[in-house]
Amino acid sequence: MILLYDHPLSGNCYKIRLLFSLLGLEYESKSLAVTGDRDGDRGEAFRAKTAIGKIPTVRLQDGRHLSESGAILWYFAEGTPYLPDDRFARAQVVQWMSFEQNNHEPNLAAARQWMSIDPDLHPSAEQIESWRLAGSRALDVMERHLSAHDFFVGDRCSIADIALYPHTEMAETGPFELGPLPATRAWLQRMRSLPGYVSIDA
Amino acid sequence: MILLYDHPLSGNCYKIRLLFSLLGLEYESKSLAVTGDRDGDRGEAFRAKTAIGKIPTVRLQDGRHLSESGAILWYFAEGTPYLPDDRFARAQVVQWMSFEQNNHEPNLAAARQWMSIDPDLHPSAEQIESWRLAGSRALDVMERHLSAHDFFVGDRCSIADIALYPHTEMAETGPFELGPLPATRAWLQRMRSLPGYVSIDA
Repeated sequence: MILLYDHPLSGNCYKIRLLFSLLGLEYESKSLAVTGDRDGDRGEAFRAKTAIGKIPTVRLQDGRHLSESGAILWYFAEGTPYLPDDRFARAQVVQWMSFEQNNHEPNLAAARQWMSIDPDLHPSAEQIESWRLAGSRALDVMERHLSAHDFFVGDRCSIADIALYPHTEMAETGPFELGPLPATRAWLQRMRSLPGYVSIDA
Repeated sequence: MILLYDHPLSGNCYKIRLLFSLLGLEYESKSLAVTGDRDGDRGEAFRAKTAIGKIPTVRLQDGRHLSESGAILWYFAEGTPYLPDDRFARAQVVQWMSFEQNNHEPNLAAARQWMSIDPDLHPSAEQIESWRLAGSRALDVMERHLSAHDFFVGDRCSIADIALYPHTEMAETGPFELGPLPATRAWLQRMRSLPGYVSIDA
């Protein structure tokens, strides 16, 4: 059985649960601390399994481990409609997943963690404004694309959409507003309508 | 002819120049502003070509555009030894490229930009310490992996190595030290020994 090292509040872990549900894939889940110092269940025993030491990590049925949400999405989407075959379309999936990891998640997830998850975080006003500005720019890039397209790559949901969905859907738990982003709100609704969709707290 | 929207000092653009040189691929280059407000040559005309509006961006021979260094590397490495065929190995390439975009580049590139490129940036002491700490953790993850492996995926150079190379090679232009990282220094030397290697200022 596939084992997902998981956390119920982690948007990055939720991406994997969402794909597994859309694919109807069975798996076991083990919840680890959402952020990690190097002690406890994110410590040496876990780091011996995965060089990267982050969640989500999966243990495949053959015992090998894979970390990083984008890599796990890629592995399990291969051969399914959630990862296109065409060379250019596949590179476009990498493009949007890179954008998500570099411009979107760092700002939206950090702001959400501070406002909604970990009240002991005390970021500076400068740090909060930096997240708000950069995260809003990322949302604007998405709105611009979605104003002309139903999904990020091609004409159906791919792992590019699944990667971008969680922290966009939860944006308003941080210092962001979806009200001025109608194309993004329509895309969120299309995602929620997919057969097999689950919410983060399902 | 392939056109690369480029900047001589950008580590992300250098990844593409390095792969193109390793592959012996001919291309034209057009230098744009390295960081972008929305004016000048990073403005609306450029953003009409690429939703994401960042460099590197390439214009393919058929006129289509692709942004994000990881996506461009993926597209041009497909079918070459720089992107393995095996499903798990390909997911491992995505894993290290995600790590690079999420944990490595944001800290190492930002710190380098402040110390070596743009003297008008005045980040707070808290911001600098945050880059230094998180960037050092990323370098430690690499050192741990490279202590047991010659390259990041499999036994030869892939685009995972090419993605991680530039900002590691330039780490000491920011607040990082490579002295305590012997496996990383040996890997940098292996990268510099590849036939077709070019430096960032070649």
